[in-house]
Amino acid sequence: MARVAYVNGRYVPFAQAKVHVEDRGFQFADGVYEVVALKDGNLVDCDGHVTRLERSLRELRMVMPLPRRVLELVMREMMHRNQVNTGLLYLQVTRGAARRDFGFPRRTAPTLVITVRPKRVFVPETLVDQGIRVITIPDIRWKRRDIKSVALLPQVLGKQRAIDAGAFEAWQVDDHGYVTEGCSSNAWIVTTDGTLVTRHADNEILNGITRLSILDLAKAAGFGVQIRPFTVEEAHNAREAFMTSASTFVLPITRIDDRPIGDGRPGPLGQQLRQAYIGLADGRST
Amino acid sequence: MARVAYVNGRYVPFAQAKVHVEDRGFQFADGVYEVVALKDGNLVDCDGHVTRLERSLRELRMVMPLPRRVLELVMREMMHRNQVNTGLLYLQVTRGAARRDFGFPRRTAPTLVITVRPKRVFVPETLVDQGIRVITIPDIRWKRRDIKSVALLPQVLGKQRAIDAGAFEAWQVDDHGYVTEGCSSNAWIVTTDGTLVTRHADNEILNGITRLSILDLAKAAGFGVQIRPFTVEEAHNAREAFMTSASTFVLPITRIDDRPIGDGRPGPLGQQLRQAYIGLADGRST
Repeated sequence: MARVAYVNGRYVPFAQAKVHVEDRGFQFADGVYEVVALKDGNLVDCDGHVTRLERSLRELRMVMPLPRRVLELVMREMMHRNQVNTGLLYLQVTRGAARRDFGFPRRTAPTLVITVRPKRVFVPETLVDQGIRVITIPDIRWKRRDIKSVALLPQVLGKQRAIDAGAFEAWQVDDHGYVTEGCSSNAWIVTTDGTLVTRHADNEILNGITRLSILDLAKAAGFGVQIRPFTVEEAHNAREAFMTSASTFVLPITRIDDRPIGDGRPGPLGQQLRQAYIGLADGRST
Repeated sequence: MARVAYVNGRYVPFAQAKVHVEDRGFQFADGVYEVVALKDGNLVDCDGHVTRLERSLRELRMVMPLPRRVLELVMREMMHRNQVNTGLLYLQVTRGAARRDFGFPRRTAPTLVITVRPKRVFVPETLVDQGIRVITIPDIRWKRRDIKSVALLPQVLGKQRAIDAGAFEAWQVDDHGYVTEGCSSNAWIVTTDGTLVTRHADNEILNGITRLSILDLAKAAGFGVQIRPFTVEEAHNAREAFMTSASTFVLPITRIDDRPIGDGRPGPLGQQLRQAYIGLADGRST
């Protein structure tokens, strides 16, 4: 089965999936993206992802490259052509190719690229069973983190710092000592009194689609939830911690910097929410 | 004469100059660039640009895609193949194409792209004669602006704000009211007592190559120079203002926001430095 990519209206062999060197995604990071989990043929939380894509584009005065329904058909077609039922779909829209100039080009068609890759399991079971380690680093990003742009260099450097430290993710910390979010995930803790805490969504963080679903699930399960920033110190002393993202769902965190979290094992709330989200991913086909 | 681009060791027709959709320059803004002016066959300030390229790459733990001497040969070859004596050379290096993951890929060859475009004149004479207008906007960029990365989305949005306001450039202003720099240029004023002022180079601004040459020229001409931040208010009340960049050299600024600068006409220091830099560009072949 030959892998194919979708590039500007054409399904092409993956190796030949290319964009022009003057694409504004390549020269200016002038584009946005989404990652959608594929689980047993479902596009997990697809509505949420496409809605956020529309918002990101609007914020940058870009237009949807295809009508929403057609875009979703292409996403499904990509699953089928690649025969991937479980994996990740990556979708990127840029302002298109144009003579290099900082301002928006007068006339140019947006670039749309979609790729799909299979995954046997979303994350290795050992990570789910043992939990992961995160480190904390200064948040050096720009001030419009609510836009899911491809200007990801700070997140690349942050994630590499985590890897260098033998950790899975890095939590970014603002100038006041509050955790904003991970480099490609949202951050959650459970306080010693059992309250679930995650930061409110404003310009400082990306409003995760998985985050929103987990919030719904937590409320439905009757958990006490606070939507507010928390400090690194509060995280170090938390009873439990976890991260959420489209590509990992919910991952327990058992160590932050050099501090074990709780008893050093994945906590029950995170595990319960992980199972609930997997149920949602299996059941909620869009 | 068919236009050619250089892409990873090959000279290709411009329309076919492409990179893979999984190039990290396209998906992560994980790359750096330089723009070098070509004037009558000279690569203006080439040494400075290549030295800064090396620094940007080092800061991102990337390697030079070619030895420095070979890179400079390719730059010259691009001028000759495109028969461009006066114009702009654009050079971009990315961490290369690899399966999408935030952390650095284990093994991948860097991507090197070079394009050249002709320019009859560097900027329309009317801009030099009448001066340009800049607006001031909040600086919303990340905290490593000293790295000349392609994560340029904030600068794109800033420049577009300038264009929407009928201005040529936007000066970005930090949280304390100090001008950092333009979206693609460095910022300069001349105070009422005739002192030339430009911001010191740290992580907050890109250390412009043209800026460095202009500093040398100003000192050689015996001008009083202060290397320090200046406020928007100080700029509004300046006797004179100008911007510098590789693609425009020195451009007089005659209006900042809605305030005319000095007597509303290009000032003598800026004009003198522009002429001196043009002399340098013509004479200093590298």
